[in-house]
Amino acid sequence: MSELREKAALAKQAAAIMNSLTTNQKNEALLDMAAALIRQQDSIIEANRIDIERGRANGTSESLLDRLTLTSSRVETIAEGLRQVVDLEDPVGRVLEAFERPNGLRVEKISVPLGVIGMIYEARPNVTVDAAGLCLKTGNAVVLRGGSAALESNRRIVEVLREALASTALPADALQLIEDPSRASVDEMLKLNGLLDVVIPRGGASLIRNVVENATVPVIETGAGICHTYLDESAQPSMASDIAFNAKVQRPSVCNSMETLLVHESFASRHLRELADRMLNAGVELRGCDRTRAIVPEAIAVTAADFATEYNDYILNIHMVSGLDEAIDHIRKYGTMHSECIVTENREHAELFLQQVDAAAVYHNASTRFTDGFEFGFGAEIGISTQKLHARGPMGLPALTSTKYRIYGSGQIRG
Amino acid sequence: MSELREKAALAKQAAAIMNSLTTNQKNEALLDMAAALIRQQDSIIEANRIDIERGRANGTSESLLDRLTLTSSRVETIAEGLRQVVDLEDPVGRVLEAFERPNGLRVEKISVPLGVIGMIYEARPNVTVDAAGLCLKTGNAVVLRGGSAALESNRRIVEVLREALASTALPADALQLIEDPSRASVDEMLKLNGLLDVVIPRGGASLIRNVVENATVPVIETGAGICHTYLDESAQPSMASDIAFNAKVQRPSVCNSMETLLVHESFASRHLRELADRMLNAGVELRGCDRTRAIVPEAIAVTAADFATEYNDYILNIHMVSGLDEAIDHIRKYGTMHSECIVTENREHAELFLQQVDAAAVYHNASTRFTDGFEFGFGAEIGISTQKLHARGPMGLPALTSTKYRIYGSGQIRG
Repeated sequence: MSELREKAALAKQAAAIMNSLTTNQKNEALLDMAAALIRQQDSIIEANRIDIERGRANGTSESLLDRLTLTSSRVETIAEGLRQVVDLEDPVGRVLEAFERPNGLRVEKISVPLGVIGMIYEARPNVTVDAAGLCLKTGNAVVLRGGSAALESNRRIVEVLREALASTALPADALQLIEDPSRASVDEMLKLNGLLDVVIPRGGASLIRNVVENATVPVIETGAGICHTYLDESAQPSMASDIAFNAKVQRPSVCNSMETLLVHESFASRHLRELADRMLNAGVELRGCDRTRAIVPEAIAVTAADFATEYNDYILNIHMVSGLDEAIDHIRKYGTMHSECIVTENREHAELFLQQVDAAAVYHNASTRFTDGFEFGFGAEIGISTQKLHARGPMGLPALTSTKYRIYGSGQIRG
Repeated sequence: MSELREKAALAKQAAAIMNSLTTNQKNEALLDMAAALIRQQDSIIEANRIDIERGRANGTSESLLDRLTLTSSRVETIAEGLRQVVDLEDPVGRVLEAFERPNGLRVEKISVPLGVIGMIYEARPNVTVDAAGLCLKTGNAVVLRGGSAALESNRRIVEVLREALASTALPADALQLIEDPSRASVDEMLKLNGLLDVVIPRGGASLIRNVVENATVPVIETGAGICHTYLDESAQPSMASDIAFNAKVQRPSVCNSMETLLVHESFASRHLRELADRMLNAGVELRGCDRTRAIVPEAIAVTAADFATEYNDYILNIHMVSGLDEAIDHIRKYGTMHSECIVTENREHAELFLQQVDAAAVYHNASTRFTDGFEFGFGAEIGISTQKLHARGPMGLPALTSTKYRIYGSGQIRG
């Protein structure tokens, strides 16, 4: 039996215990896990050093190495994240509906854990702890498959967390790490129907695509974001500039940052030059349509492939449109149903945009950067769903639950 | 461009109109559709006759031909089904959550249509109308791919329904039928990401399996049901007999009927013989474990493969167990997370069973046959979900919706 199948089977057994724990039991375990991370931080940082050294030897970029690096203060932040999950409301065991049928059957719809969650993610070891905390708090077992670049860090972290679980009400087997760094372990995980109830990928576009294309286990697609901001004819100029600038520059590496700016031609003729300068001064490379380049000659010619690319970088496409409909059509063609924004003083245009654009989050006069569990007040999130089934947008704890009908009878049979 | 891709693209365009219709507009269209079916019933029955004749020539069984046959009264029943959907509450456009953030952002979570729903189903032409009605009522466009055995019937029905839509506020293109009877059209449908938002298969186990294994479009898995009834030591004998008999015999062909009876050894020693006789007298073939066969020699030896088979027929597995845990373990191994029942007078055992058995519907002292949209009071259903994501159990109209966050700002940017 493969490492994966064996650990997933242990997780499934553990899930049967996990689903009947009290909130207190789960919270105490999370606090013990946080304490263990702090107590064992030296050994975690030591394991992390091995990853960093191997990464450096392999020529990993310094910015990636920086994201991978654990320090005492970063371990403290990660542990604090676990403590914050304690404060979140437990979404399991709620009676969502309850009704009695004319034949006397009493039907209750109850929220229950999903069961066993498979997480596939890339570099940063903090995701290991975040995912463990959110999955265990919701009564799920979790099988983690992190990136090979963080293997030593993840191995030690999971060891520490499992040791901590051993003295709690939670079965240590509810937390599993797949150590096989090969692509084969991912491929196998995607087909593990019957052992995994859902797979959640977290990472770049190619990781997500591989999961969506090959999984037979149900998937919650997360993260890929080609987000647009549309500056309408009546947009208030300084607000438009601030929102567009924030959406592009405040943190370009994340999924809810802007990749393409759509500008109404009349707004563009009055204000695009100034906005382009602001972007250029911040080091943003501009790619524009012909009409944009007539105003901003610094922009290179944008291609259809550019419109379909999530840069996650200081690059911005600019496309001039003749009105709202053309903007909506462009988003329909190139958007990834993540976050889309219109800046306008025209209330009717705003409502049409919010109605017709099909995305997890649609904004009027605010930066797309707000699509985030903390910003919505949900607390830590397992990801941002860009699909329409089950959960859409920032996924708080309820996204990690399912439901079950409990029916109480007194001998009813169907006539 | 293939027929499928072309029609799905038209459906996607139509979906952008569908999502902003009023409930009245949708209800009027449903009533017009129902009236058109009645008005055009002769041509529908005529088309159906071609399917029946071809089926008979191909050696289709009489029972299947009967399910396929349309008569005047069956068309009336189908039209009545559409009228009943009118009475169901429109789940679209509800404000599910609304809150204001400290920075002044107003966030609303709104229910929206899923978009374009792909339905893949088998023989019966009534599913064509049911699915059309439920999908259109929820503001979705729908691409139907019915079984080839009903192709002429489906073609005429969809023609009639589209003609009816032409004089309503709904775009006729929101309703599409794939006429290509080849397996290739199903395979293509399963990969139509970007045009279809979800695929819902409705049919036998092999259809469902094909969809789950090959789809890259999100799937709502429905229908396959290996359901168990467990008669506990303290079960009230006549209630136990009635529930087990009803679960097996009332309509064996459906997914929520019982395939395996689990019997506590002590209950079995007192009551199994009598219950077996009742089953045998109703024409049920029995397959049993060794201990069962000691009491019921008429039963042939049951195999592990039998336990994993959905018979949909007058066949029953009987397995004797030493207690609750063994029953739950058996269900965990062979169940399909559809409907499971315990008959017991022991309240604690009932609660343990309902807690630990992982299924869409878990019953105490009632027949599993109640897992059904009408029986739950939800009205017509698009299917019974046996997966844990998005919807579980009988899927009423809300299962055909997604959500969207609308965020209203006044220039907020992220710091």
